[in-house]
Amino acid sequence: MGQLITRSDLEALDRADPLRVFRDRFTLPEGVIYLDGNSLGAMPQAAPARMREVVEVEWGRDLIRSWNIHGWIDIQKRIGAKIGRLIGARDGETIVADSTSVNLFKALAASLELRPDRRVILSERSNFPTDLYMAEGLIRYLGRGHTLRLVEPDEIDAAIGDDVAVVMLTQVNYRTGRMLDMPRITEQAHARGAIMLWDLAHSAGAVPIDLTSANVDFAVGCGYKYLNGGPGAPAFLYVAKRHQSSVTSVLSGWHGHASPFTFEPSYVPAEGIDRWAVGAPAILSLIALEVGVDLMLEASPSALRAKSLQQTSIFDALVTQEIGNDVVSLVTPREPGMRGSQLCYAYRDAWPVMRALIDRGVIGDFRAPDILRFGFTPLYLGFTELWDAVATLKGILSARTWDRPEYHARATVT
Amino acid sequence: MGQLITRSDLEALDRADPLRVFRDRFTLPEGVIYLDGNSLGAMPQAAPARMREVVEVEWGRDLIRSWNIHGWIDIQKRIGAKIGRLIGARDGETIVADSTSVNLFKALAASLELRPDRRVILSERSNFPTDLYMAEGLIRYLGRGHTLRLVEPDEIDAAIGDDVAVVMLTQVNYRTGRMLDMPRITEQAHARGAIMLWDLAHSAGAVPIDLTSANVDFAVGCGYKYLNGGPGAPAFLYVAKRHQSSVTSVLSGWHGHASPFTFEPSYVPAEGIDRWAVGAPAILSLIALEVGVDLMLEASPSALRAKSLQQTSIFDALVTQEIGNDVVSLVTPREPGMRGSQLCYAYRDAWPVMRALIDRGVIGDFRAPDILRFGFTPLYLGFTELWDAVATLKGILSARTWDRPEYHARATVT
Repeated sequence: MGQLITRSDLEALDRADPLRVFRDRFTLPEGVIYLDGNSLGAMPQAAPARMREVVEVEWGRDLIRSWNIHGWIDIQKRIGAKIGRLIGARDGETIVADSTSVNLFKALAASLELRPDRRVILSERSNFPTDLYMAEGLIRYLGRGHTLRLVEPDEIDAAIGDDVAVVMLTQVNYRTGRMLDMPRITEQAHARGAIMLWDLAHSAGAVPIDLTSANVDFAVGCGYKYLNGGPGAPAFLYVAKRHQSSVTSVLSGWHGHASPFTFEPSYVPAEGIDRWAVGAPAILSLIALEVGVDLMLEASPSALRAKSLQQTSIFDALVTQEIGNDVVSLVTPREPGMRGSQLCYAYRDAWPVMRALIDRGVIGDFRAPDILRFGFTPLYLGFTELWDAVATLKGILSARTWDRPEYHARATVT
Repeated sequence: MGQLITRSDLEALDRADPLRVFRDRFTLPEGVIYLDGNSLGAMPQAAPARMREVVEVEWGRDLIRSWNIHGWIDIQKRIGAKIGRLIGARDGETIVADSTSVNLFKALAASLELRPDRRVILSERSNFPTDLYMAEGLIRYLGRGHTLRLVEPDEIDAAIGDDVAVVMLTQVNYRTGRMLDMPRITEQAHARGAIMLWDLAHSAGAVPIDLTSANVDFAVGCGYKYLNGGPGAPAFLYVAKRHQSSVTSVLSGWHGHASPFTFEPSYVPAEGIDRWAVGAPAILSLIALEVGVDLMLEASPSALRAKSLQQTSIFDALVTQEIGNDVVSLVTPREPGMRGSQLCYAYRDAWPVMRALIDRGVIGDFRAPDILRFGFTPLYLGFTELWDAVATLKGILSARTWDRPEYHARATVT
C-alpha cells in the first residue's frame, strides 16, 4: 500500500467482500467493533432458537428420551467429526469433550505412555500458561523425574533431543499472534522419535489446518474462540488413527467405555476416538457449539484466510499510517505466513488504553504485562470497522483520554 | 397401611401436600408420569427465560465483558456455594467444575497423595461403574502397585485395613437404591487412617446430607439428576477445609491458578476451593444448573425427605397390593433409613416392560440385567401419579403387552 488508505477504500472492500453475507448470520450489538472473537466468538444468529429448542423440547418435553431421539448419545462424536473437517482430520479422529486443559492432560499422558523411556516434555516458554500448568501437574503427580523443557520459538528445533517424549506447542501464540510451522516442527519431532501434540486454541477456525498431511499425533483446541461455540464451550481432542488402539485415556470414564450402558464393573475402552470421552457431556453447551461449527463449515477456509491476512495487513498499515510505529510497537510477525488472525501491540499503558477503547465500543483485550491484543474474525468483521477501530485508538492515545483513574483500576479480570 | 390404598387416598394426599406448590415451578409434558428424575431432572419453569438471557444478553450482547459484568468469573464458586448448602458443607468447600468422573479423579488422586504409604482404593463392587473405571485408569497410569479392592456393602467395615488409602463409595446405589451409612463408614475409615470420598450422584438433592458433621474428606456429585440442572450439567466437588492447603489438584489448570489472568509461566495454586477448577467453565450449562439449584434451595430438606419416604413407601405398598411381590421383587431395602429416593424391582423381562411403560407415558428406566428403576422426586412428583404408574405397570404385566417385538428391540441406549 504505497499511498494513504482512506475510509472509502475500506467501504469499497466491504462492498466487494464475498464473505460479507456471513455478517448477518451473527447477532452483534450496536455500536461495538468486536476485535475479541479470539477470546469469545460472537453469537450466531441461529443460536437463540436452537438453544430454545434444546431447552424446551429436548430437555423439557422429551426428557431422558432425548438421549435416543435427539441423538445426545452421539453428540460428542458428531460435533467432533464436524470440527475434524475444519482441521484436516480423517473421519473418527476428533471428539468434543471436557475443556482444552483436560484434553491436553489426556493427550500428554498418552504421549508419555507412548514414549516410556523418555523424560522430557518440550514446550515454548510463552505457550499459553494452562498448557504448561497441566504438564507441571502431570509431571509432579507422576513423580518419575520428567521435566518440562521451555525454550524460545527459535530454539525449538535444537531442543528436540532424543530425550524428548513429546513436543507440546500452541500453533498460534496467544500473546504474540506468531504462528509456528506445523508441518516442519512435526517432521522434526518425528525424526527424533518424539510425539507431536498441537494446541489449536488460537488457530482452529482462524487459519487453514491440515493435521493429516502434517502427520500430527495429538491435537486439542477450543470451542469458544474462532468456532463461535459460546462461553466456555466444550473443547476438542484429535487422536491420529495410528495411535487409537495403542493407548487408552488416563481419564477412563464411562462415556469412553465400549458399552457405557451395560454398566460392566471393569473398564473396556471403546474402539476408536470414543474412548477419549469421559463423563456425561454438557449437552446445552454442546448444542451451542454445534451451531457455531455448522456456520463455520459453510465458509471457504481459503477465503477466510485470505480475508484474515488482508484485514491484519490493513489494520497494521492503518496503525502505522495513523498512529506510528514509534508509539505502539507490533509484537506479531509482519510476515503473513508467520501469523494467525490476531495482532498484538506493546504499549506501556496497555491496560488503561484497552479499558478506554472498550468504553468506546472497540473491544479487544489486554494481555499482561503490556499487550493490546486485537483478534480478526473474517466471518463477521468488516473492513470499515478496521478504520473506525484505529481512529478510536488514535484519538485515545493522542488526547490521553486513557489516563483517567477509572481506566487504571484493576477490578476487572480480562 | 393395614387396609387397601385407593386412588382417592392419594388425591387427598396431593391436596394436603405442602410441597405441591413446587410442581408448578416445573414444566412437565402432558401425559407423562416422570419417575426418572434421578437420571435427568425435569426442567424448572424458569430455565427457558434464564437461558434466553444468558444466550442473547450475556453472550450475544455483552460478549467478553460478561466475565466481569455478569459474574462469569466467579460462577463455579458461586454455584458451588449454593450446592454446598444442600450437602452440609461449610463456606468455601464446594466448587462446580467438569464432570463427576473428572472430579472423582481429582479427589482420588489427592487422596492417594495424602496417604502415600498405602496402596488400596476400597470400593463397593456394585458402585456406579465410572467410579471404578476412573480408579482403574489412575491406578494403571500411576503404575505403583495400587489395587482396587471391591467388596459387598456388608463387607465394607471388615475390608478397611491399614493398607487402605481411600474408601470411595457412592452414598445411594444407582442400581439398588440402597443408602449407606455415611457417618458410620466415614468414622470407620478415619479410625483406620483412610481418606473418605463419597459420590453423592444419587443422593444430593434426594436425601439430607451433612458432610460437615460426618467429617467427610472429599465428595463429588452430579448436577443433572435431583438438582435439575439440565442434561449433562457440570458436576461438583467438595474438599474439606482441613485438606485444602495440603494438596493441589493433579489437573492443575489456569482457572485453578492463584492469578489466572496474569498468565504466569508457573502454576501457583489458588487458595481454598478455587484451585480445583481446571479449564474455562461451560457457562451455558452452568446457568441452567444454577436455576435448578436455586429452586431446590427454596424447599425444606426435611419436608423433601419426608415426602420422598412417604412416596416410596406408598409406591411399594401399591406394587404389593396391585401386582404382588411374587411377580416383581423389590431390590431396594424396605427399611426407610436404608434407601435413597428410588425403588428398584427385579423382573426377568425388565427391558421390554420398561419400553412398554415409557410408551404409555410412565418414564422410569432399565438397569442391566433385569432392573426396573423408579426415581421419586418429591419436588415435582404427585401422589396420584403413583397410583396411575402402578396401574399402568399392572396392566402391562397382566396383559403381557410388553411382549411385542418393538419392545424387545435394543436399539435404544438407556
